[in-house]
Amino acid sequence: MKHLAIVLLVLGVVFAPASCTRQESYDVGQIRKSIEEVNASYGEAIREGNLAGVVAAYTDDATMVPPDGDLIKGKQAIEEFYRRLLQMGVKDIVLTTIEVEGSGGTAYEIGKTKIRIQPEGQETTQDSTKYMVIWKRQADGKWKVQADIWNLSSR
Amino acid sequence: MKHLAIVLLVLGVVFAPASCTRQESYDVGQIRKSIEEVNASYGEAIREGNLAGVVAAYTDDATMVPPDGDLIKGKQAIEEFYRRLLQMGVKDIVLTTIEVEGSGGTAYEIGKTKIRIQPEGQETTQDSTKYMVIWKRQADGKWKVQADIWNLSSR
Repeated sequence: MKHLAIVLLVLGVVFAPASCTRQESYDVGQIRKSIEEVNASYGEAIREGNLAGVVAAYTDDATMVPPDGDLIKGKQAIEEFYRRLLQMGVKDIVLTTIEVEGSGGTAYEIGKTKIRIQPEGQETTQDSTKYMVIWKRQADGKWKVQADIWNLSSR
Repeated sequence: MKHLAIVLLVLGVVFAPASCTRQESYDVGQIRKSIEEVNASYGEAIREGNLAGVVAAYTDDATMVPPDGDLIKGKQAIEEFYRRLLQMGVKDIVLTTIEVEGSGGTAYEIGKTKIRIQPEGQETTQDSTKYMVIWKRQADGKWKVQADIWNLSSR
């Protein structure tokens, strides 16, 4: 039995990290908590008009799939998208997570937003969307958005 | 050595499926090919008005995130959604995959659709959407849609 125990130990060390990248140590509850933290920081950055803080939620090669127009690819294009959004008078985007599934280094989130828009000198309007986001865990353990699509709700 | 070989064999059978579900044997090219095959069957089923064939692309607990209204959850609700779509005169949905990322048992796809609609006695119109789909490999090796969101393009 001692012999078998040593073999098990060696196999565990050799095989587990190579093939599974320690998936089992990140459960979906922890992933959801991390995602909701990033979403809260994102909302705060929108309210502050802090463009760098907004795009910090995205990976360098992230893709956005907007309702109108072409795919938006890469951090620079995403920054340009949000620059225009802020210029249009978007003052707040509150994200509410509905469901998260995933394990290991990738997860997807379905959620909804409430958006407050107030162009200069005009009245405030509200908008709402539903979205799906692909999240990727980075080398430093932080979660970032790899892909982002949304649609307009109830209109 | 013979003893060790038997231990390895037993461990391989016991541990590999449980912890890794053989991720390394499914590359993204193979996944994309499988997804495009399901998409082709889906389009064919739409053209045939074959509701069972359409919903066969989805897992039993799949979620759809439509532009209007609430989330659609589960195969029965998804079937109801497509029943209405066919009744509205949708005659064809051609899916074109733009990108696929993933490995192992989960992948996401970004793509676009061309939809042909011809309500009875009326003229044919075209519509187009962009979409993101979460795919899950099933126990039998087939890929099915776990989550599906789309938005209307260019209007």
